[in-house]
Amino acid sequence: MNTDQKAGAKVWYIPDCYYPSISSPGHYVSHEAVCVLNPGKQDAHITLTLYFEDREPMRGFQAVCKAERTNHIRLDKIKDANGNVVPQGVPYAIMVESDQPIIVQYSRLDTTQAEMALMTTMAYPVK
Amino acid sequence: MNTDQKAGAKVWYIPDCYYPSISSPGHYVSHEAVCVLNPGKQDAHITLTLYFEDREPMRGFQAVCKAERTNHIRLDKIKDANGNVVPQGVPYAIMVESDQPIIVQYSRLDTTQAEMALMTTMAYPVK
Amino acid sequence: MNTDQKAGAKVWYIPDCYYPSISSPGHYVSHEAVCVLNPGKQDAHITLTLYFEDREPMRGFQAVCKAERTNHIRLDKIKDANGNVVPQGVPYAIMVESDQPIIVQYSRLDTTQAEMALMTTMAYPVK
Amino acid sequence: MNTDQKAGAKVWYIPDCYYPSISSPGHYVSHEAVCVLNPGKQDAHITLTLYFEDREPMRGFQAVCKAERTNHIRLDKIKDANGNVVPQGVPYAIMVESDQPIIVQYSRLDTTQAEMALMTTMAYPVK
Repeated sequence: MNTDQKAGAKVWYIPDCYYPSISSPGHYVSHEAVCVLNPGKQDAHITLTLYFEDREPMRGFQAVCKAERTNHIRLDKIKDANGNVVPQGVPYAIMVESDQPIIVQYSRLDTTQAEMALMTTMAYPVK
Repeated sequence: MNTDQKAGAKVWYIPDCYYPSISSPGHYVSHEAVCVLNPGKQDAHITLTLYFEDREPMRGFQAVCKAERTNHIRLDKIKDANGNVVPQGVPYAIMVESDQPIIVQYSRLDTTQAEMALMTTMAYPVK
Repeated sequence: MNTDQKAGAKVWYIPDCYYPSISSPGHYVSHEAVCVLNPGKQDAHITLTLYFEDREPMRGFQAVCKAERTNHIRLDKIKDANGNVVPQGVPYAIMVESDQPIIVQYSRLDTTQAEMALMTTMAYPVK
Repeated sequence: MNTDQKAGAKVWYIPDCYYPSISSPGHYVSHEAVCVLNPGKQDAHITLTLYFEDREPMRGFQAVCKAERTNHIRLDKIKDANGNVVPQGVPYAIMVESDQPIIVQYSRLDTTQAEMALMTTMAYPVK
């Protein structure tokens, strides 16, 4: 078996982000997640930068993905150091930066119009 | 942290495009988006070429993604210099060309049969 | 602008194929498509090989994607030289081979349980 | 035609896994699948490792994908040597290791809130 636990990349991009402002009644609320896997032996310290269509980027959303752990970072729950949250109802994009190699997948669950819709894709790595 | 803001590619392909001609009543209309992220320091000038199954390509749909911005290009709203729009209800494909490195993701929201369905994928880059 | 129209690959793989045997009443029927884009100047001659869980592969499903055209190959409609069709209700996988470089995306629309669900991904290229 | 049947990779990662604990009445149950294609001439012996947010990885889930076959590994059905199953309702991630080159795609069908939602992506290969 392959034992290279250093696989992955340190910078990933997700162009299509959108935090729906509506959730229909039901089990799920509309949300997005930046899903990180850290297969390595050292904790990964992660910074998210948010890009918008008509304003300056928001920088400095922090997260940790411990060694040999996953972290499904919920974008409806994350806050920066000043308590800012991800804005709802506007198109945005994300750059994910890590000090350790990680693998990043982005998913969105939208229940604006019940029942629900799902989408996912690997993020785009800088190799 | 990685400071290479030049990441991305200048040509991207999306084979599966389709602009549904039906939308059910609700919050969303059926639509597609070519979601662009420009993490660099210079504005990106973008041209879309549309390929069809049985006719010549339509060229010259223009867009801009400013430096450190995202642009979620709505394909139901874009027009070429002659006012032509994306045709509905026919299979097509897109080539995205940019004068700066960008990252491109394609998404479709279909409400033909309510409630709604979502799909997304990174486009295919020429490296 | 980039003028390399030779981009793409000649072999692509799609591990998760499934042709639902059920469609709910509505505008759409459940179906899969292998969406091909040929941005080059020469017609692409394409062969699909189907892999199954417990039987020999089915070979020799043919299609053409003309120069500067797309072909959204409907898997519910394609037939091999002997008139065989894609079997319904069983897991399978596809290898796409082409004599010209192409780009391949796979999508499925499932209306087994109305309303509808969509999924898509770029296929995996051999580079 | 290309005859390189050795294409693929031996290690693949899937950061966003989730086994829903709820299924609505209907044809489908909520489930995930790790869809493997082995286009080569030798059987592939596969091991899945599961990563979590707050506990040690679960190792040693085994599967086989025979030569020139596909295996859509259902994560709601797989068991390790001790009879352990994939836990429901918690975020996790998967590393797929194989002794032969394979191609891996991950899909999820969620019927928590009827009707149903689908998502898919190629896994991330170590090349």
